[in-house]
Amino acid sequence: MPAPSPFLEERHVRVRAQFHERGVDALVVTHAPNLFYLTNHAASAGLVVLTPDAVHLVSDFRYVEAVAQLQASAHACPGLVVHKVPASYDEALVGLLAELGVERAGIEASHLPVARFEWLRRTAETRKLPIAFVQTERVVERVRLIKDAWELGALRESAARVHDVADAAFDAVRAGTPERQVAGAIERALRGAGFDRIAFDTIVASGPHAALPHHRAGDRCLRRGDVVVLDFGGILDGYCCDLTRTVAVGAVGPDATRVYEAVRDAQAAAIQAVRPGIPASDVDAAARAVLEARGLGQAFGHGTGHGLGLEVHEEPRVSRPQPDMPEAVLQPGMVFTIEPGAYLPGWGGVRIEDDVVVTEDGCEVLTSVTRDLLIR
Amino acid sequence: MPAPSPFLEERHVRVRAQFHERGVDALVVTHAPNLFYLTNHAASAGLVVLTPDAVHLVSDFRYVEAVAQLQASAHACPGLVVHKVPASYDEALVGLLAELGVERAGIEASHLPVARFEWLRRTAETRKLPIAFVQTERVVERVRLIKDAWELGALRESAARVHDVADAAFDAVRAGTPERQVAGAIERALRGAGFDRIAFDTIVASGPHAALPHHRAGDRCLRRGDVVVLDFGGILDGYCCDLTRTVAVGAVGPDATRVYEAVRDAQAAAIQAVRPGIPASDVDAAARAVLEARGLGQAFGHGTGHGLGLEVHEEPRVSRPQPDMPEAVLQPGMVFTIEPGAYLPGWGGVRIEDDVVVTEDGCEVLTSVTRDLLIR
Repeated sequence: MPAPSPFLEERHVRVRAQFHERGVDALVVTHAPNLFYLTNHAASAGLVVLTPDAVHLVSDFRYVEAVAQLQASAHACPGLVVHKVPASYDEALVGLLAELGVERAGIEASHLPVARFEWLRRTAETRKLPIAFVQTERVVERVRLIKDAWELGALRESAARVHDVADAAFDAVRAGTPERQVAGAIERALRGAGFDRIAFDTIVASGPHAALPHHRAGDRCLRRGDVVVLDFGGILDGYCCDLTRTVAVGAVGPDATRVYEAVRDAQAAAIQAVRPGIPASDVDAAARAVLEARGLGQAFGHGTGHGLGLEVHEEPRVSRPQPDMPEAVLQPGMVFTIEPGAYLPGWGGVRIEDDVVVTEDGCEVLTSVTRDLLIR
Repeated sequence: MPAPSPFLEERHVRVRAQFHERGVDALVVTHAPNLFYLTNHAASAGLVVLTPDAVHLVSDFRYVEAVAQLQASAHACPGLVVHKVPASYDEALVGLLAELGVERAGIEASHLPVARFEWLRRTAETRKLPIAFVQTERVVERVRLIKDAWELGALRESAARVHDVADAAFDAVRAGTPERQVAGAIERALRGAGFDRIAFDTIVASGPHAALPHHRAGDRCLRRGDVVVLDFGGILDGYCCDLTRTVAVGAVGPDATRVYEAVRDAQAAAIQAVRPGIPASDVDAAARAVLEARGLGQAFGHGTGHGLGLEVHEEPRVSRPQPDMPEAVLQPGMVFTIEPGAYLPGWGGVRIEDDVVVTEDGCEVLTSVTRDLLIR
């Protein structure tokens, strides 16, 4: 079920409130998650021109009927005007901007490819249309950064449903089973739990594969003594959840226990550190300090977490401060993962990941699956 | 299993052969499928600078170990030099181009976002580096358009394995079953057939939903008399297959039979039309003529097909000629779908889709699942 109409209305207000400072009189939205956020319209193609008083959706034959059904529901997009595209989207866009009298059209510079931008600019110039295309960034994303009440409900529901999926994942971990089969069991459980689809390629990284943070799932069969990283998530009503657990196959040695406990403690320290008003990098630093103290600083080569919402990787970034990049300061309503790990080439790795929302005085952990080392 | 090294070498040769006409002395590859095509390296981040004598891969911590394993195999990328990125990819790129003495760096203008392009241009200028960034399009895609022998093998294998998946899909279609559950059965079968992952969100569109060409799978339960569109595909060794069948639940009326036969005949006519040397739009016209003759021209609002390979939608586009767009002329080794449909709002729809490769004198249909109307 997509967001009810009043939530969309509020999102439009927050995006339009930026028009003045951005120096635009309309925003051309081409990034699909942003388009969905503003209209409830999910499509692989399409664009929106958000003006001060309407939401112009340019769509094609394939979606016209779906949009009509949406607009007849309680999830209708307020102020929507549908324009059916005859051939080229960008041709339709230039025509629409001219018709609406838009003079300064913001474009999403982080998403729009150079070639489309140049075509728009050149075409407006050739036709002597008084339209300037203004490069903007993070206009819709800035609003998406703080989840509204409806989104928090969707994210809580998504995270709650992953509980049963984790149980199915743990059950599937057995010596002799190929990684691929464990991934299949996880994806079946995601469907069974009502998720619309998987949020990303399921990771089942066993034994030495666990040293590869982005290994997917292959033909290797799980063996006794393996440590297995399971990283999976689903999308429910558009919103993602993302969970990682590391499980042992049969008894494991003291090394595995030591690394596991270090990662678990690093994660706990990071969760403990979350509160409004601090830079996101403080959360990363909290995890990193624990791993460094246990001699695993070098083994933790990625950031501690990433924002989560309509996209499985969005803002805020929870990592070391980056040169030349403004840092996110945590605010209530931000949702992100906390997933420190330790990777030792040849041996394997451990990662533990949960999803949290920043509250007034700390954070709420959305995912509630045991973090004890499971021995299967 | 990714492509053996000699195939990669040949691809590099074909891309480099375009440097002169494009006016570049190196190509910056940022589009992930292009990067995989040239290196066998699959990653959610990373970029390549292809120079006349090397393949510089800029990657990060998460992938370094995986790249090392790849390079130790028979699928190693010839001429690969790995650069581990310390922080920002684009910062590393500017440094690398300067170090290599690249003066005219081609960028992939259809993929690179405006903001990254502007940052690169501005940064090179500020640092007084003699690097010009040249907008190029379809450099790697032009090579990918004609599949090499290894790719054709992978596409054949991918298409062959979808046969069992179709059987599982047909078995799952029963009155009373929710669309979502049918989709789950299809995705389980895709995993079971050895696919690495699904190629796109599985479509199970039943009854009136079948009138929405891009409906996914929801809570509606199949009913007797429904016509159900099943559209699914998987990715095997990086290569996609894409199949659509339309199935009836119990006896259907003469309308359904009439629409089904029209779409089946339209598809047969399009397959029959395929041969080297003709514009791709001739294939579209062949399907469209049949549907128009049966009074269903208006009901067929999308193109007849799309290229298939590392991406589920790639070149060539098989549709009506587009204004201002150069038309693809069919050549042996091109692979695409042929999927006419007819959609009648309120009633439902029919679509039938197969994957074909252009041969010296016609085409080979890669998918071999019955096209008779199945009554379940």
